[in-house]
Amino acid sequence: MKLLQPRPLTREAFAPFGQVIELEGATQFAINGGTTQRFHDLARVDTLAEGGRPLISLFRAQPRAQPVRLTLMERHPLGSQAFLPLSAQPYLVVVAPDHGGRPGPLQAFVTCGWQGVNYDRNVWHHPLLALEAVCDFIVVDRGGEGCNLEEWPLAEPTGIF
Amino acid sequence: MKLLQPRPLTREAFAPFGQVIELEGATQFAINGGTTQRFHDLARVDTLAEGGRPLISLFRAQPRAQPVRLTLMERHPLGSQAFLPLSAQPYLVVVAPDHGGRPGPLQAFVTCGWQGVNYDRNVWHHPLLALEAVCDFIVVDRGGEGCNLEEWPLAEPTGIF
Repeated sequence: MKLLQPRPLTREAFAPFGQVIELEGATQFAINGGTTQRFHDLARVDTLAEGGRPLISLFRAQPRAQPVRLTLMERHPLGSQAFLPLSAQPYLVVVAPDHGGRPGPLQAFVTCGWQGVNYDRNVWHHPLLALEAVCDFIVVDRGGEGCNLEEWPLAEPTGIF
Repeated sequence: MKLLQPRPLTREAFAPFGQVIELEGATQFAINGGTTQRFHDLARVDTLAEGGRPLISLFRAQPRAQPVRLTLMERHPLGSQAFLPLSAQPYLVVVAPDHGGRPGPLQAFVTCGWQGVNYDRNVWHHPLLALEAVCDFIVVDRGGEGCNLEEWPLAEPTGIF
């Protein structure tokens, strides 16, 4: 089995695939008479293609047995997809560049503290990989007509250690 | 001082003002090979008026001293605004019907468990009212040009007990 070693999730390393959603380094300002701090515009939401609309949903992910085995990659040709965890539990993020219509070499990241991700439209990624516990994520993605899911089963067994 | 007594936040009671975002009663289905449950399309996002776009932000609210004193109501003429807490701490939600361009009689609600709210476009509401601790909320609202904030100071001192 091919093994991937996850790297810490950082804005710079993840930039080719989308945005890391985190508070450090975010634009922020006080609102509501100083009682609230607004960390502003944390992701590039792109959900309007072909008559689409933004959806707010919640995904409840079961933890994976470790070492985690990767099964398939997927992408959403019509919209971005943001994941914002309700906890600071670490989870895995696996992405790949597109190589001629299929995923290229996989890259794995692990979160540290409260970090979300926004996958840009049409970026190959693995479905949610919670680790230690059931984890809830707010998800902002695209609703509407059209085929917005492409899946690619992984031929070579791949794990994360 | 006029006093308001908060009611439990329910979908039915809140329906004239927007949606309660909660898991009970939501449309749900399994995805990702059964490893994830999707609670689907929990709010009516309305952020595209006059060239607007959906924003994802995080609001960090300081707790209010109790009894909570209400200072002003506000509304967003160009877009909805969704608040999704990162915790299950209770907080207050205060809304009002529009009476000829100003807030009518105020209604107060208190959350129970993990509940968010989505204020429909142009609905009068009070800014965030956290109670016991600093509370973080994912916020999905509208970005873009145009005047999207109207405020109405409350002439009569009003509190919540």
